[in-house]
This record gives sequence, C-alpha cells and structure tokens, in this order.
Amino acid sequence: MDKIVDFINVNRDRYVSELKDYLAIPSISALPQHAGDVRQCAEWTAAHMRGIGLNDVQVFETRGNPIVYGEWLGAEGAPTILFYGHYDVQPVDPVHLWTSPPFEATVRDGELYARGSADDKGQVFMHFKAIEAHMKQHGRLPVNMKVLIEGEEEVGSGNLDDFVREHRDRLKADVVVISDSPMFDRGVPSICYGLRGLAYFQIDVRGTKSDLHSGSFGGAVANPAFVLASILAQMKDKSGRIKIPGYYDDVVELREEERQEFAKLPFNERKYRQDLGAPKLHGEPGYTTLERIWARPTFEVNGLLSGFTGEGAKTVIPAVAMAKVSMRLVPNQDPKKVGDLFEDYLKKVAPKSVEVTLTRMHGGKPWMTAFDNPYVQAAGRAIERGFGQKPVFNREGGSIPVVSTFSDELGIPCVLFGVGLPDQNAHAPDEKLDLGNFHNGVIASAYLYDEISRG
Amino acid sequence: MDKIVDFINVNRDRYVSELKDYLAIPSISALPQHAGDVRQCAEWTAAHMRGIGLNDVQVFETRGNPIVYGEWLGAEGAPTILFYGHYDVQPVDPVHLWTSPPFEATVRDGELYARGSADDKGQVFMHFKAIEAHMKQHGRLPVNMKVLIEGEEEVGSGNLDDFVREHRDRLKADVVVISDSPMFDRGVPSICYGLRGLAYFQIDVRGTKSDLHSGSFGGAVANPAFVLASILAQMKDKSGRIKIPGYYDDVVELREEERQEFAKLPFNERKYRQDLGAPKLHGEPGYTTLERIWARPTFEVNGLLSGFTGEGAKTVIPAVAMAKVSMRLVPNQDPKKVGDLFEDYLKKVAPKSVEVTLTRMHGGKPWMTAFDNPYVQAAGRAIERGFGQKPVFNREGGSIPVVSTFSDELGIPCVLFGVGLPDQNAHAPDEKLDLGNFHNGVIASAYLYDEISRG
Repeated sequence: MDKIVDFINVNRDRYVSELKDYLAIPSISALPQHAGDVRQCAEWTAAHMRGIGLNDVQVFETRGNPIVYGEWLGAEGAPTILFYGHYDVQPVDPVHLWTSPPFEATVRDGELYARGSADDKGQVFMHFKAIEAHMKQHGRLPVNMKVLIEGEEEVGSGNLDDFVREHRDRLKADVVVISDSPMFDRGVPSICYGLRGLAYFQIDVRGTKSDLHSGSFGGAVANPAFVLASILAQMKDKSGRIKIPGYYDDVVELREEERQEFAKLPFNERKYRQDLGAPKLHGEPGYTTLERIWARPTFEVNGLLSGFTGEGAKTVIPAVAMAKVSMRLVPNQDPKKVGDLFEDYLKKVAPKSVEVTLTRMHGGKPWMTAFDNPYVQAAGRAIERGFGQKPVFNREGGSIPVVSTFSDELGIPCVLFGVGLPDQNAHAPDEKLDLGNFHNGVIASAYLYDEISRG
Repeated sequence: MDKIVDFINVNRDRYVSELKDYLAIPSISALPQHAGDVRQCAEWTAAHMRGIGLNDVQVFETRGNPIVYGEWLGAEGAPTILFYGHYDVQPVDPVHLWTSPPFEATVRDGELYARGSADDKGQVFMHFKAIEAHMKQHGRLPVNMKVLIEGEEEVGSGNLDDFVREHRDRLKADVVVISDSPMFDRGVPSICYGLRGLAYFQIDVRGTKSDLHSGSFGGAVANPAFVLASILAQMKDKSGRIKIPGYYDDVVELREEERQEFAKLPFNERKYRQDLGAPKLHGEPGYTTLERIWARPTFEVNGLLSGFTGEGAKTVIPAVAMAKVSMRLVPNQDPKKVGDLFEDYLKKVAPKSVEVTLTRMHGGKPWMTAFDNPYVQAAGRAIERGFGQKPVFNREGGSIPVVSTFSDELGIPCVLFGVGLPDQNAHAPDEKLDLGNFHNGVIASAYLYDEISRG
C-alpha cells in the first residue's frame, strides 16, 4: 500500500484539476434544459471509468437519464464491492448567492467550491482515483469491483430500482459502498451504519356536509378539527412515548457499545438547542438527543389544515380537518406493519360522530448494518489509515432511499463511506468539498479495497 | 283593537304594493356603487315614517350610511318602545340564480320574492303599517314609540354604537323591539328570548426558528403541531364537557319551564342530523340538542394551520402551528372573564418546550330577557292574537350584535319579534317573505303595542 499512497500524494494536484473538468458539466437532472449536459456527463463518467482501467464500461439507457456501469473482476476468490454514486447534481438557484460560478470550480481556503463538489461527483471521483492508483501501481485491484453511477439521484432515482432488478446477476456483490454523505463533523471522520425508515400518512376527518355556523350549530355536532386534535393527542403520552399498541415491539434496542460510541461524540446540546431556536429540547425519556434522532422511532405531525386560517375571525365549525403525520422507523420496524398498527389504533380512538379516513403515503424501511459487521469494521480501519484517526460509528435520523434499494434488492450489507462535511451546502449555494478530506478520502478508499480483500 | 284589525285586513293589498316600492330600491350597503341607492332608501324610509304619523323624523348623518329616526311620544305615562330595524340589504350575486329580478318584488305562491323582503325591509314595514293602523283609527298610539332604522346592519353596524351612545337620552325607552329574525319554523311562531355570546381567540405555538427535517431532527424537539393538538385536546373531556377551570361557574342553568318549552317544539333530531350529513350528533351529556345549541356554552376549533398542507408528503417538523378557537357563551358568562380563565389554563397546560401565544380577538356578551319578563309575555300574547296560536319561547345559538348594543348601552330588555322563516334565503338568491306571516305580523305588531301599554 505504500507505493499506492505515494502515488496518490504525488498526483494530488492532478486529481483536483481533473475533478474541475468533471464539475464543469452542469448535469442538473431536475431541469429539462440540461438534458444534454446530463448525457454529456454520463459519457464523461464512462470515458473516465475506462481510463482508470475498468472493463466493459457501458452507458445504459433508462426511461430517464443513463446509468453508467463498469467493472473489474480479476481478483478471483476475493470479495466483490458494488460501488454506487451519482453524476447528476442539484439546481443552482439562487445563482446570485454563489461566491464563484457554480460550474467553474474554484479553490478558496482549501475548499473546492462548485455544484456537485461534495454531492456527489467529488466523492465518486475519490473512488475513481483510488481505483486508478491501484491499477497504475499494481495493474490490478485487491477486490472485484463493480461501479454503478446513476444520473437521477437528485430527482428520486426513479429508474434505479428497475435497473437493479433487471441486472441483479450483473450487480451481484458482497458489499455495497456508497460515498454520498457527510462525516459527523469537521475533524470527526465517521462511519454511518444505520438510517431510519419512514411511514407517512394523511388523516382526514369529516364531520358534516359543509362548514356550519358555530353559533347556530355549536354544541350539537362533533367538531372535526377538535376531534383530529384529540386523536393526534392520543398518539403520544406526556413523556413523548408513542401509544400505538405494539409500536415498539420490533424496535431493536440500542446496544450498550453503540450508546458508548455515541456518547464519545463531540456534541454540544446547548449549542444544538440554540441553533434550532428551541426553548427546550424534548424527546423520549431515557435516551440522549443523538439516541433519539438516530435510533428511536418517532411520531410527528407534519401538517394541519382545517376551517378558517386567514386573518381575523370566522365563526365556523369546519366540515373537515386534515393532518399529515409520519413516523421515523428504526430497525426492525416495518412500514407496512406499523401502518397496520396505526390504522387499528386510529379506528379504536376515532369517535363515531365523525368519519375518519387514513391514506397511506410513501414509506421506506429502516436500514442498519451491525456496526461490528466485518465490512463496517474494514471501512473503519480504512478511514483510520486515510485520516490518521479512528472514525466514530454513528447512525443518521433520515433515510437514503438508494440504501434501501440495494439492501432490499440485493440483500447485501452496505457501507456508507462519506467524507463530506455537515456544512458542505450540498443543496445550497456555495457547495464545497474540503480538499484535505478529499485527499485523505482517496487514500482511505484505496485502503478500503485492501481491507475488504483481507476479509 | 277590532277597528284596527279591520283596517289592516282591508288594506292588505295596499301594504304589499307599498312594500314593493320600498324593495325596489337596491340599498346594498356592502357595495360602494350603491351609495346613492342607500341614501335614497334612507330618504324613502324617512318620508314613509312621516307619512304614517311619526314626528320629528330625521335622517342623521354618520361616518357611514344615514340613520333614520322618528318618534311619537303622545302616550303620557305609558311605556316607551324603541323599535330597531335596518333599511340596507345584502348583495344579490350570483344574480343569475334568482327566479325573478331581486329588485322587482314578485309574488309567487303567497311569497313575496325580493332582496330585503324578509331581511329586513318587510319586517320593518310590518311595524310601519301597524303604527299607521293605530294612527289612522285612533289618531294615537297606545304607547310611546321611538323608531330607529339604520343602513349598515349588513356590514357590521359600524356606526350604531356611537349613535346610541351620543343619543342615549333621545333613545331612552322601556323595551327594545327588533323584528329581524326568523320564527322557529313555518307554522310555529316563536319569541326568541336568549342569544349566546362569543369569545374568539387565536393560539400560536412556536417550536423552532424554522421548519426542520423530520429525519434529521425528529425526536429531539417538541413538534408544535402535536403540542397544539395536545393543548386543544385538553380543553374538553371525552363527553364534551369543557375542562377550563371555572368555565361553568357563571352559567345560568336552564329552568325546568324552559326545558319543557323547548321539548314541546317540533324538532326531528334524525332529520336534523341527516340534513347536516353528520354520522352522529354529539354534545354535552345531560342536554338535548336544542338545549346544547341554545343554552349551553361551547368550545370550538374554528381553524387549524401548520406545516405542509399540500398534495403528497413533505417530511417537515413545522416551526409553528396556529389554531383559531372560540367559545359560545351563555348567560351570565362574561367574554373577558372567560378569556382570563382560558389564558390561565392554557399557560398551565402548555409545555415549556414551545412558546405559546394567545391573541384575544372579538367577543360579545350573551343576552337573555327572562322568558317570564312582562314584555316577553306581552309579545307572546300579541303573536297569539296575530297568528291565532300560542308562540313558542325559544333561544338562539348565535349572536345578534345590535341586541348587545341596546342591552349594553341602554340597559333595557329586548324583545325579538321576528316573523321570518328559516328558509327565507335571507343572504341568498330568491329571498322571500311569506305574505301570510307578514299580514299576521302587522296585526301582531299592532297588538304588541296594545299589550305593552297594558303592562
């Protein structure tokens, strides 16, 4: 590995220069007028993949933007990595808030500013350069490598599931590696090994045919807005525990080692609260804030609408009331099963004086690769080699849909190997990539293949 | 009185013909382009009042539309009636839904169709004709009479309070008579002796500075929409009783005679429910539907707004949540005191994890003239004379703001002597006045003055 690290160190400037070319292509998947740029970017990606020594590189057509795929399968008997990334980027509006033009990558204070620098071209490129370093120095990789770079991540990966299903054999691997996420904090490299899932619903309550005058009818009929409030209030107790019967049955409790790992993290609860502007943090008793957002399920009201909501006063009993509600799920909760439990409980608590309708909207499974999984541990050692310090093992409160795609379709573990930073402005003006992180990331990626090859 | 009734019977057709002229003036107070018509209508009203024998008829200027006032004070020692009505009318849109033009009064099946026929020109005219009948037959009235006809009732009576305050001495009377309301039902003449008051509020709940991603932050902070729902849910118990401490302290319980009176009314609860389209009626235990809407206070949610309310799903923790809430009050609840009780309770139930703000919006006192009050009883006898059947004594769930004006400013009892019908389309196309009711109403009004003169 020494020769490889030397090669990477020597080529540092070239990498940035090449990455600038990649970032110059405005491959904005959300805007139809950039369709040509998106296609050009797919071709650029494919050409570069061929250049670093991947074989059978193809640009696959989909109903949307092309998927670029290439592989190197010369490491007989060694594990196979499926690396996933995306070449499409977010829109750049409001463009006047950018310090330098979003598609003219510019270095300032050790950061490379450009749309896509962190999300995700820069992190894709990090692996390209690690692969290249292995190939240039040894003519081979220590593992089998399959590389899938899609062009619709920023618009929902609408054609990825079908592609993965159709090419299940081609994509067969032992582990998925994704580098599309931030580290815990600057100077705190991390491996995220768990994500929450989601179950999203709309509740509609109807009381009467039409809105009623609250003077003429108030007192005689149930008020749908009040009933909705009462129903929602029955979903959690005062402490914040969710009251849906069976809701916690499948929840995998945090292991003591995980709690210790989270507790080591540099997390300033006071600053966190102040940044949010919350009078007081509030959550499930018996858990820290990080445990609550990473490893505990939630019940949230995302929206409420009923009756008169304008300026002033209107004395109406609303005919209908609506709430959007959702639950963040943790391993091993299942969105479908949780939806059933919720629906049963809703039926139980809804009074007969109104009609209550539940609409199930989208959902996604939670995901976790046990943090003592060998691939997760290999990733940890690789990060330590690249960054000179042990990474923390964390989880995240949100979802990354493609993780579910691979996890569900291929049934293999996934390693989130991200070197972004929380302040990278991924979907905002002045998106940036820390070049120190990028450089360390190339080394860490090169080590990752090596560590995985050792099992 | 026989001579007077004969006179009214003989002049029946003339009354309708004169009323048609009154209804031909499009005195729509809500529309600036009708300002000239409104003024013309005030002049018409004043001229007619002079014609029937009232003295000192004046058109008083206000900051808005004129108030017409006249009096006859020749009944020394007898009680004084202050009669209130309004000459302005509602707009007529959508005008294409009218069967005949709204300002060309047309008789069909014993109903006079025109804007203002019931609300309120027709009912004002009923008293004009009763006064005229007394004057023509006896050259005098049995009571002293003060008549105040305003031109802004349909736009909130914005200048009436000031006028009543400024002319307190001029308006001094023993009883206010208002004919601007419907009877309980066709064939069921009624005297309304009580109205509910109102206290209206807005509750704002703030959690954080801005909306948060429900994945990244869900579980760590209070959700304002959920907190608002929980707060609202604590305002009433499952049965529908309001839980605000002290809320019922000043409530005057229904008297047994009132309950018996209400129970006599032809009220089909099944049809009522079906007309509203409610799966089930719901209200405070221990009270009938009519008791609930007429004589019991309420807590209603009039509006809810928070977070994402569009199509689809957005995984947001709202920064803020808002509710409009109001209470219908019954004698002797005071809007100010109820507001204080509500605010205290709200502070008690609001968690420290959010900021809760209460805004007091408009309020109005409940009103009741005891149904055994001599004026109310006199009105009952007058209705019996005019309609040939005993009236029912009922209350109403809504408010009539001008009743509070007279009750608060002059401190005298008020009699609601309305002969409209519930299906009169007062603010809708095809407004109509039942000519049988009108004719009986003229006789009943003539008797009213006589009955009141007897004390």
